[in-house]
Amino acid sequence: MIIKVILMKIAGFDIGGANTDLAIVDFSENGEIKNMIVDFEYLPMWSDNQRLSDVLLNLINKNDDLDKIDGIGISMTAELVDAYNKKEEGVLDISKKVINTFNIPIGFVGTHKLLTSDEVLKNPSQIAAANWIATSAIISEIDENCIFIDTGSTTTDIIPIKNGKECCEGRSDFERLATGELVYTGTLRTNLSSFLKKVELNNKEYSVASELFATTADIYNILDKINDEDYSCSTSDGAGKSKMESMIRISRILCADMDILSVDDVIAISKFAYKKQVEQIAEGLNKVSKRENLNKVVTIGLGGGILGKEAVSLLNLEYISMNDFYTKEESVVAPAIGTAVLMYKHLVNSS
Amino acid sequence: MIIKVILMKIAGFDIGGANTDLAIVDFSENGEIKNMIVDFEYLPMWSDNQRLSDVLLNLINKNDDLDKIDGIGISMTAELVDAYNKKEEGVLDISKKVINTFNIPIGFVGTHKLLTSDEVLKNPSQIAAANWIATSAIISEIDENCIFIDTGSTTTDIIPIKNGKECCEGRSDFERLATGELVYTGTLRTNLSSFLKKVELNNKEYSVASELFATTADIYNILDKINDEDYSCSTSDGAGKSKMESMIRISRILCADMDILSVDDVIAISKFAYKKQVEQIAEGLNKVSKRENLNKVVTIGLGGGILGKEAVSLLNLEYISMNDFYTKEESVVAPAIGTAVLMYKHLVNSS
Repeated sequence: MIIKVILMKIAGFDIGGANTDLAIVDFSENGEIKNMIVDFEYLPMWSDNQRLSDVLLNLINKNDDLDKIDGIGISMTAELVDAYNKKEEGVLDISKKVINTFNIPIGFVGTHKLLTSDEVLKNPSQIAAANWIATSAIISEIDENCIFIDTGSTTTDIIPIKNGKECCEGRSDFERLATGELVYTGTLRTNLSSFLKKVELNNKEYSVASELFATTADIYNILDKINDEDYSCSTSDGAGKSKMESMIRISRILCADMDILSVDDVIAISKFAYKKQVEQIAEGLNKVSKRENLNKVVTIGLGGGILGKEAVSLLNLEYISMNDFYTKEESVVAPAIGTAVLMYKHLVNSS
Repeated sequence: MIIKVILMKIAGFDIGGANTDLAIVDFSENGEIKNMIVDFEYLPMWSDNQRLSDVLLNLINKNDDLDKIDGIGISMTAELVDAYNKKEEGVLDISKKVINTFNIPIGFVGTHKLLTSDEVLKNPSQIAAANWIATSAIISEIDENCIFIDTGSTTTDIIPIKNGKECCEGRSDFERLATGELVYTGTLRTNLSSFLKKVELNNKEYSVASELFATTADIYNILDKINDEDYSCSTSDGAGKSKMESMIRISRILCADMDILSVDDVIAISKFAYKKQVEQIAEGLNKVSKRENLNKVVTIGLGGGILGKEAVSLLNLEYISMNDFYTKEESVVAPAIGTAVLMYKHLVNSS
């Protein structure tokens, strides 16, 4: 009996609208993850996508030697940024940039299977913000029947897994906005006015200024849920990231400033906003949990411990922390790791 | 008996965050408006306030001769833009720019009275987004007991007038967000995700992408409520202002595009958004109407006929159109006209 022995080093990228994540994974003979390096770089794809190729190479060269990499896995959500009129246009532009960057095997995570470079250029519609499919590949190894909540800087995926396979009812972001499997809210870049219609403060109810005056990064900065390094997005007024500067931004959502509001007022507003964002995610989670009759939830991503965990306890579901299985840094880039896993399996099966 | 005879030409400016409006008003011997020229210029004060002085002079020189102007009236809301850390900082910066531009009498509309140049520099806190006070000066001449709704590009003022005097419970924008007298929603610049939590489409309920993908200008562009000239703000993606480009922007709020959605779908989304924005304004109007027991409503501003009127009929209140008394162009810049009226009265009383 011959046992196929394959040692491989795969680089998995998750190209998001705001961040590009990397996981370089070494696989052992039996396909287990032997070693892993993860990293990310802030790249606003709506304004700066010309830099994508440099960012991909820089991320690899910072952490390993490109010549040692056996394959590249790509998952993306950046095709949604409004630099592209249509998602297919975005998928094609991003895919071409990737293909022109590397001359080793590349696999693109699609809604139904991993696509080769030729396939993605022929069928760009089969890629559609599908990084949650990549994440499913590693979550199912934690529990074959669970929901995972991946709260990133901007969006939250709520993905049901049954018998080790993701079973999302929505197959595109558009469909998932209706099924509850995508809640467009996150830990850093989300405009407070997008989920706060009203703010309760000192027994009064205030409506909110509909401007981009402050983001959730300011809330979690003030509430000590994120550190300076986590605050990786730009500020809504271009000013700094100190707690006082976050407070000034938050005061503006009530057309106020730090003469009108006290520090305690702004902390109260932040706690109120935190509660409302948890409820927003819990609404989607409840929909998915009831539909699939699943009550174990794995939370991942930067917002896993901040928002996902709170939504789980609000609904009295069973909480499983990704951090018991992966480091914080690893779980933040889970889609990149899953992309590497899918690419590894693809190469093994096709070898 | 001697009758004081005063003929005057006053320039009233309303310096908003997005637009600077002008009304040059000629007053007759008995203080009646004899003649009026109105104009406006798009000036994004959050990025471009260094141009304010040039814009003020340009607006006057385009329409009249500065040497013939007897006085300048100023009302402002631009001190709210996030280029300023505090509103007083904004009031001082704007006031100084105005004072350095003209060497004729200037009056600044304050929350309690008209302030001279010296007074405003000493007490900037008495200016506070008070252009609705200027508007009251002309609305009260239409009806001494009414509410007026001024829906601009970005915000909606809902101001009660009793016995010819405005009687707002809130004296600052912060307070008015709680009293219902300020609803931060408008006809052009308002981010759809700020008032749309959900969109109903083809019997499904979709949550909405919390990005600045489309604004109300796109809605009213598609629904033929505004013309190309009305669409005076920049687009959220920097693309053009054609109906199809507006549709592409609107499709993005559901993470979709014009392959996924039909033209009819986007029209349905636009009508749904229109309904929701009317309800948002009606909520504030209802609060003020019930509190002050006023049921006659004058609607003005670009959104007067689009949003204000619909909110009035939703609540079965009595509708009075400003357009029966002023032209559309005049009613759009009502605060500028009212500012000129207040400055005229100030000069007459102090002469």
